Amino acid sequence: MTISEKSGTTFWQCPSNIALIKYWGKYPGQLPANPSLSMTLNTSVTKMKIDYEFDARLDSPEISLLFNHQAAPRFEERIIKYLPSIFDILPAIRHCRLHILTENTFPHSAGIASSASGMGALALNLYEINASITGISEPEADKWKKISELARLASGSASRSVYGGWVTWGKIDRLPETSDLYASPLNTGIHSEFLSLRDFIIIVDKTEKKVSSSAGHALMNNHPYAACRYASARKNISDLIDILVAGDVEQFIQIVENEALTLHALMMQSTPSYLLLKPDTLRIIELIQDFREQNKIPLCFTLDAGPNIHLLFHENVEKKVMVLLKEISDLCSKIEILKDGIGQGPQTLSKS
Amino acid sequence: MTISEKSGTTFWQCPSNIALIKYWGKYPGQLPANPSLSMTLNTSVTKMKIDYEFDARLDSPEISLLFNHQAAPRFEERIIKYLPSIFDILPAIRHCRLHILTENTFPHSAGIASSASGMGALALNLYEINASITGISEPEADKWKKISELARLASGSASRSVYGGWVTWGKIDRLPETSDLYASPLNTGIHSEFLSLRDFIIIVDKTEKKVSSSAGHALMNNHPYAACRYASARKNISDLIDILVAGDVEQFIQIVENEALTLHALMMQSTPSYLLLKPDTLRIIELIQDFREQNKIPLCFTLDAGPNIHLLFHENVEKKVMVLLKEISDLCSKIEILKDGIGQGPQTLSKS
Repeated sequence: MTISEKSGTTFWQCPSNIALIKYWGKYPGQLPANPSLSMTLNTSVTKMKIDYEFDARLDSPEISLLFNHQAAPRFEERIIKYLPSIFDILPAIRHCRLHILTENTFPHSAGIASSASGMGALALNLYEINASITGISEPEADKWKKISELARLASGSASRSVYGGWVTWGKIDRLPETSDLYASPLNTGIHSEFLSLRDFIIIVDKTEKKVSSSAGHALMNNHPYAACRYASARKNISDLIDILVAGDVEQFIQIVENEALTLHALMMQSTPSYLLLKPDTLRIIELIQDFREQNKIPLCFTLDAGPNIHLLFHENVEKKVMVLLKEISDLCSKIEILKDGIGQGPQTLSKS
Repeated sequence: MTISEKSGTTFWQCPSNIALIKYWGKYPGQLPANPSLSMTLNTSVTKMKIDYEFDARLDSPEISLLFNHQAAPRFEERIIKYLPSIFDILPAIRHCRLHILTENTFPHSAGIASSASGMGALALNLYEINASITGISEPEADKWKKISELARLASGSASRSVYGGWVTWGKIDRLPETSDLYASPLNTGIHSEFLSLRDFIIIVDKTEKKVSSSAGHALMNNHPYAACRYASARKNISDLIDILVAGDVEQFIQIVENEALTLHALMMQSTPSYLLLKPDTLRIIELIQDFREQNKIPLCFTLDAGPNIHLLFHENVEKKVMVLLKEISDLCSKIEILKDGIGQGPQTLSKS
C-alpha cells in the first residue's frame, strides 16, 4: 500500500464549554485580547465522525458534510475556509477527501457555543487523520497543545473544549504554561466546592442573534472601553484562579455575575450599541438573585453572548434548585431547560 | 427697620432636565468626573415658595418644610445638611428662618430627577432671599452662574436646571465659558431639528431603586471602567455639540442611545454589579427601535439612572409617535406616560 492510498475513519465526541471569565475581543491570527477561563460541559457535546481518504493528487481537500443528517452549507463553507490555515500543522489534510457526519446532543442556537464543541471535534478528528496518514505521533502533552491550537484557529472558545474540567486560554503571567496559542487545563488544587458544579442552561430565546459573536468581537476594535476591559479581565481571571483554589463561593458568585453582565455591558457601550438581553433574561436574573438572597443557597448565573442563562450551583443543592426552576417556569412559560454540568472533556468513540 | 427685621416671600418654579451625555461619577466637592449635556424640561417642574425671616441672633438657619402639603423629613434633612455649604456664598442665609412649601407637577420617583428641579428651585429662592436681605445684586450673567453653583452644591444635575433649552455642566476644553463649578447654556447656533424636541416619559416602575444614584456615583470610585468612561464621555459630548449644530439626526440617535445604555452598562460593570433595567424597559426599547426601523421616523430613547424611558422626537412627528405609544401600552399595560418637552427654564411666580 502506498501512502496515497491511506483511508480510514475517525470518530470523536467533544463537549461545549461555558466561559466564566469571558473572551470578547481578539487580535489578528485568532489571538485573544485577554485570557479566559471556562468550565467544560458534560452532556452538551458534538459527535463527529470523519471518513477520510488520502489522495496525493489533490492540492486542496474535498469535503462533504451532514449536520444532524442534513446539509449545512454555512458550516461546510466555514470548514472549507478554515482548512488551509492548518496545512502547515497537519500537512496530510491538504490531500484528503473528508466525509464529515456531525451532530449535537443539544438544540441548535440554544445559547450553547456549538462552535466550541463542533470545532473542537473537528480538530480532534483532523489531528488523528493526519497522524494516521503520516505516522507521526507526538508526546501526549504536545499532542493536546497542538489539538487545542487547531481548535483555536477554527473558533477561539473551541481551544478550551479539548480539555475537561476547568480550562484557561490565553497568556496569564502567573501561569508560565499558558499561551495565547492554546488552552491549558487548570485542574490542580481546585477546591472541592468547584469540582462538582452543575450548569442548568435556561433557554430564553432560540432565534438568531441580531449581532453575531464574530461581529461582536469586531466591535471591540476601537471600542472606547477596550483597554479597561482587557485590564479588568486580567485582574478577574487572576482573582478567580485564587478563588477556585480557596473555595470562596461568595467571591466566586460576585466575579462570575460581574463578568456575565460586563460582557453585555460591552455590547451596550459599543458603536453602534446593541442589546442581546431579553425581558425574560432580566426577569430570571432577578428571580435567581432573590432566591439566593432569601434561601441562602449559593448559586449564580452566567451568560454567553446571547439572552440565555447558565445557572451554576454545586450538585449537593440540586434538589433545592428545583424549587427555583419551578418559579422560573411559572413566570416564563416559554423557556426550556438543559441540565448539564462540569465534564471530563473529549473522548474517542467506537467507529463501527 | 434694622437689617435684622427683614422678612418676605420668594416663589420660584424650576424644571427638571434629562441628560443626554450622562453625569456618572464625581470628585469631592460635588465636582463632575466628566462634563454632561442636558435638555431642560417644560412641564416637569418644582414650585417652591419660601417665607423667610432674617434674625441676626440665629447662628444657623431654622427650617420647616412641606412637600406636596406633607412633612418630608428626608428632604428636610438633606436641606439642613446642605445649607452650611453655602454660607460663604449667601451669608444672610445663616441667620434665617425658612418656611418652605414645595410641590412637583410630576409623580415622585417617576424616573424624573426630582432633585434637579427641587434643588434648582431651592437655589433660586435662596439666592433671591440673600439678595433681598443684603441688598447685593450682581450683573445678570454672574448671578446665574452663582445660582447654578448653588444648585450644583445641592445636587449635581440641578446645576443644569437653572437654564432653559440645551445646557452643559463641566469643563469642556473647546468651550472656554464652561466650568466644573456651574452649568452653561448652549443655545447659540443649535439646529432647528433640536429646538422643538418632545420628551415623553414612559414610567415602567415607580418603586424605589435598589441602588440609589448617590450609591451609584460612589461605585465609580475605583471602578475598572472609570478612566475609559470619562474619556469616552468627553468625546461624546464634543461630538454631540457638533451634531446639535449640524442637525444630524441619525448621529444624534446613535450617541444618545449609546450614552443611555452606557450608563446602565457602568452599573453592570461595577463591584458589586447591579441592574436597574427592568423587563419592560428592554421590551419598550425593542419596540422603539423596531418602530424607527420600520417607519423611518427619527426618534430615540434615553434613560436616567433607573428603569424608566424618555422617548425623544421632534414635535412635528408627534402624531405618528402616538401609534408607537399605543403599541407600547398594549404590550406593557402598567405603564404611565408623562408628556413633556424642551422648556425655557425657571421662572419666578406671583407670591400672592
